[in-house]
Amino acid sequence: MTTEPRRPCVLGIDPGSSRTGVGLVAPDGTRYRLVHHEVIRAEGDLPDRLVRIRARLAELLAEHAPCSAAFEDVYHGHSVPSVVKLAQARGVALCTVAESGVPIASYPPAVVKRAVTGSGRAEKPQVARMVAAILGLDAPPPADAADALAVALCHAMHPGWQP
Amino acid sequence: MTTEPRRPCVLGIDPGSSRTGVGLVAPDGTRYRLVHHEVIRAEGDLPDRLVRIRARLAELLAEHAPCSAAFEDVYHGHSVPSVVKLAQARGVALCTVAESGVPIASYPPAVVKRAVTGSGRAEKPQVARMVAAILGLDAPPPADAADALAVALCHAMHPGWQP
Repeated sequence: MTTEPRRPCVLGIDPGSSRTGVGLVAPDGTRYRLVHHEVIRAEGDLPDRLVRIRARLAELLAEHAPCSAAFEDVYHGHSVPSVVKLAQARGVALCTVAESGVPIASYPPAVVKRAVTGSGRAEKPQVARMVAAILGLDAPPPADAADALAVALCHAMHPGWQP
Repeated sequence: MTTEPRRPCVLGIDPGSSRTGVGLVAPDGTRYRLVHHEVIRAEGDLPDRLVRIRARLAELLAEHAPCSAAFEDVYHGHSVPSVVKLAQARGVALCTVAESGVPIASYPPAVVKRAVTGSGRAEKPQVARMVAAILGLDAPPPADAADALAVALCHAMHPGWQP
């Protein structure tokens, strides 16, 4: 459990069995600022990958103490084998965040895209460019981190969210 | 991590977001004996369920110190929404077992059914009856526990497995 006070930032997670995107954003006046982003790379067989994802997420939760976390809902249009891999990583990420006591929100992919680009059908590069623009970054972040930052921003922008 | 010596028994897990079957079997001369079975029931929202599954599995791993664990591969014929729920629970279970240092095997469902019934197309009640017969139980165990015991037996019977 996180024992230090939580900080007014949102943790977004884009889980995957090989690469899990992580992004933390915080409100900054009327804008948002980047706190941290990274891509957790996991190798080896699946159980070892899941252990790596859990360990690094636990470190990030302890370091940044976010006051909330956000995920995308699983998109059901993918093939079953790819959904299975993604969902196993997602389960580990959900469990790790929940154990730290951080409340979790989940949004449909189209809602996340619309929140950051204005269109629920935006392509990934457009999402990454808009994430960079919103956060005032010089260049778009890597794709997995951009998706994680997008869902974090979607949650931070949500009228119901308060830091 | 498990610090006490591992015992010559196999942990089988049949993950699910509401009910996760667990079964432990041990070789006993030329036969097999039941060590433990239970169904972990999880309620509430998904993250809380996953935390519950993890916590109980960690207790069982510490208590029984199995020397190996076995899962069924995810059956891809299910609908995507049900595969997503199952896979999220499976990811948490895989991660929890791997963190305890127990080696993990995974078998296709038809291989598990064939190992305990002789037929890869056996129905669930037949699997439960054969599990009871192999382990010398008076009655078939509950369905989720029977599936977990079946995959544990499948692994214990595998020519490559040694306690």
